[in-house]
Amino acid sequence: MAQGTLLYAQSGGVTAVINATASAVIAEARARKVKVLAARNGILGALREDLIDTGKESAAAIRALAHTPGGAFGSCRFKLKSLEADRARYERLLEVLRAHDVRWFLYNGGNDSADTAWKVSQLAEAFGYPLHCIGVPKTIDNDLAVTDTCPGFGSAAKYTAVSVREAALDVAAMADTSTKVFIYEAMGRHAGWLAAAAGLAGQSPDDAPQIILLPERAYDEAAFLAQVRKVVERVGWCVVVASEGIHNADGQFVADAGGAKDSFGHTQLGGVASYLAGRVKEALGYKVHWTLPDYLQRSARHLASHTDWAQAQAVGKAAVRYALEGRNAVMPVIVRGSDAPYRWRIEPAPLAKIANHEKKMPASFIRKDGFGITERARRYLQPLIQGEAPLPYGRDGLPKYVTLKNVPVARKLPAWKE
Amino acid sequence: MAQGTLLYAQSGGVTAVINATASAVIAEARARKVKVLAARNGILGALREDLIDTGKESAAAIRALAHTPGGAFGSCRFKLKSLEADRARYERLLEVLRAHDVRWFLYNGGNDSADTAWKVSQLAEAFGYPLHCIGVPKTIDNDLAVTDTCPGFGSAAKYTAVSVREAALDVAAMADTSTKVFIYEAMGRHAGWLAAAAGLAGQSPDDAPQIILLPERAYDEAAFLAQVRKVVERVGWCVVVASEGIHNADGQFVADAGGAKDSFGHTQLGGVASYLAGRVKEALGYKVHWTLPDYLQRSARHLASHTDWAQAQAVGKAAVRYALEGRNAVMPVIVRGSDAPYRWRIEPAPLAKIANHEKKMPASFIRKDGFGITERARRYLQPLIQGEAPLPYGRDGLPKYVTLKNVPVARKLPAWKE
Repeated sequence: MAQGTLLYAQSGGVTAVINATASAVIAEARARKVKVLAARNGILGALREDLIDTGKESAAAIRALAHTPGGAFGSCRFKLKSLEADRARYERLLEVLRAHDVRWFLYNGGNDSADTAWKVSQLAEAFGYPLHCIGVPKTIDNDLAVTDTCPGFGSAAKYTAVSVREAALDVAAMADTSTKVFIYEAMGRHAGWLAAAAGLAGQSPDDAPQIILLPERAYDEAAFLAQVRKVVERVGWCVVVASEGIHNADGQFVADAGGAKDSFGHTQLGGVASYLAGRVKEALGYKVHWTLPDYLQRSARHLASHTDWAQAQAVGKAAVRYALEGRNAVMPVIVRGSDAPYRWRIEPAPLAKIANHEKKMPASFIRKDGFGITERARRYLQPLIQGEAPLPYGRDGLPKYVTLKNVPVARKLPAWKE
Repeated sequence: MAQGTLLYAQSGGVTAVINATASAVIAEARARKVKVLAARNGILGALREDLIDTGKESAAAIRALAHTPGGAFGSCRFKLKSLEADRARYERLLEVLRAHDVRWFLYNGGNDSADTAWKVSQLAEAFGYPLHCIGVPKTIDNDLAVTDTCPGFGSAAKYTAVSVREAALDVAAMADTSTKVFIYEAMGRHAGWLAAAAGLAGQSPDDAPQIILLPERAYDEAAFLAQVRKVVERVGWCVVVASEGIHNADGQFVADAGGAKDSFGHTQLGGVASYLAGRVKEALGYKVHWTLPDYLQRSARHLASHTDWAQAQAVGKAAVRYALEGRNAVMPVIVRGSDAPYRWRIEPAPLAKIANHEKKMPASFIRKDGFGITERARRYLQPLIQGEAPLPYGRDGLPKYVTLKNVPVARKLPAWKE
């Protein structure tokens, strides 16, 4: 049995499989007889000394965690500043870690969280405290550098492709006398990975989605409307997938173009799909429907990809191994061996290479006209949505998601005022 | 082998399981050696003599149809007027039916389609043509009279309950530093059945959805906002499910309250969730997210209810039987024997009792405060989402949905000008 405690925390937007990572972390640490605490709401729980004793959870609960979406310990949107600017917070953090004999800290998140993990990983040297900090990847945005893909993305991608294919069958059936254009808004503020994944729903240019709008290309309204018209005239209907982050040539987000007010002067929250739907209706006169799946796309564990689910667990397991081996400032990343069959392995990569880098889609993934994806993008994306992750359903017709007890650890320190 | 042809058509908004009904109709007719044609785009296909020979489809394709969402033969939104007002159309319809020796007509749809089916069923007597017309139920709105439930509803209800539970896990994880209120817009213009089904996602008043807004109760903004604040203060976050059809005490649809214009004077298409999100943000200052699943909720075959799927097939099979037995102007309806275990059977009911009636939710299904459902509603709804309908996935990670060949039948009549 290793000396000390492992602290695990979840950060940033949660996913359908971040709890699969948590489950793997806890199971792997248990197998190695290491005690695991979880910080409630990410790094904030560590600062607040709001810790959870995962030892109080049954083995069955930890197994069920692997198929439960959301973030079982709570997440946060909070970024630590530099050591100089945030010294009081770092000192408090170390105080809490010391009080609970935390020697290993696993921070599970996306870009901002990798930055936080990297900063914490530097504390050992700065303060002379023996801490091993491992970043654990997670983000539906798929924008972490170095790693082949990010746990959470594959499941959201599968949700997107399946939902677009299903909705397209609906639109195709109704187009003669009803909706001719359907617009799907995908998450992705800076990179169009999820919108691109919708491209897996079809094979030919006439299959849905016939148009994909990506933030990597400037939104040109005239070209977009002309393309919609062309598709409707050729196919009879048109499915558009738009990334929430599309912007015009001046860099203005299309989602911000509105700031619409209703007749009472209230702000109407819109978004890209709502805006595009309004433009198609006004400019082309087609009947339009649109969808904003929002959180549904990142919490749909019922449609998780097996590849994604397996990778989410693999990075959790590797993170524990790296920590106990005494590594610091690394992240277990996914390395692709081949596309088809998809082969991958986990390797450690320096957090410094990952924090604050943002992986955009390569230009070679985007079709010349900007409205679709290339074969190369397909080869990259295809394996990420493959396979279905097992999910038990109850007699009530709902998935059997677990609610952990989340028993708090007794506080040893005075309360902390932020 | 019976003399004559059976004509099947799909009408109104399609569902995750209307093709399961189509599959059962074709399989049952084949077993009885009856030829089945399908009209493309509902009754319009019959008027246009745009018919499809289902005999050209393989047995495997017809089996796969049972797990394919959308409407394989195309649907329509089109209502025939009275015999007096629409005489030319009825005469054309009979001409087409005669030309193809159609003796049995099965019309698969919701309220408006039941009305069309009833009108067509009266032709036999009016024109002396031996036609047997059977209405086949389908609608995610669950608002057909007489029948216990409507094929299509149970799957949309399951989608709603599962999606709300999943999204709630996401919101709960993020609420400390991010989204505190999440709003889900469910279909249902006149009756709140789908929004009510979201109530199955939770058991206690603190479980999501903590607030359900139904069209059966007038929307009172002050009461709604006060309730949101109360829930957030008690639980830390709040999930609201709103029926698209909610309206204020004057009968004005909340979705129409806006008519918002953006800064360029373009209309922004909104909806209920968008409007409510704006109000919560402005009045209470909480961070809000919202979703408009739109067609996703009625095409999500990947999350179909087994009960619903079985019933969709049962009504298709019964419709063929009724037709061949020489019945006319009836619909196979679902009769509930008991709640738990759920027992049901199919019986014929007169179309005259179904057409143009709209089944709203009984008052006893709605909680006194108007923000949730009662135990009685739960007992009714619970069995409808039970069980998972089998669905094969391909190696590409997508469900194996079938595309029929839809081979047209050679026209025998001159073209018809509408």
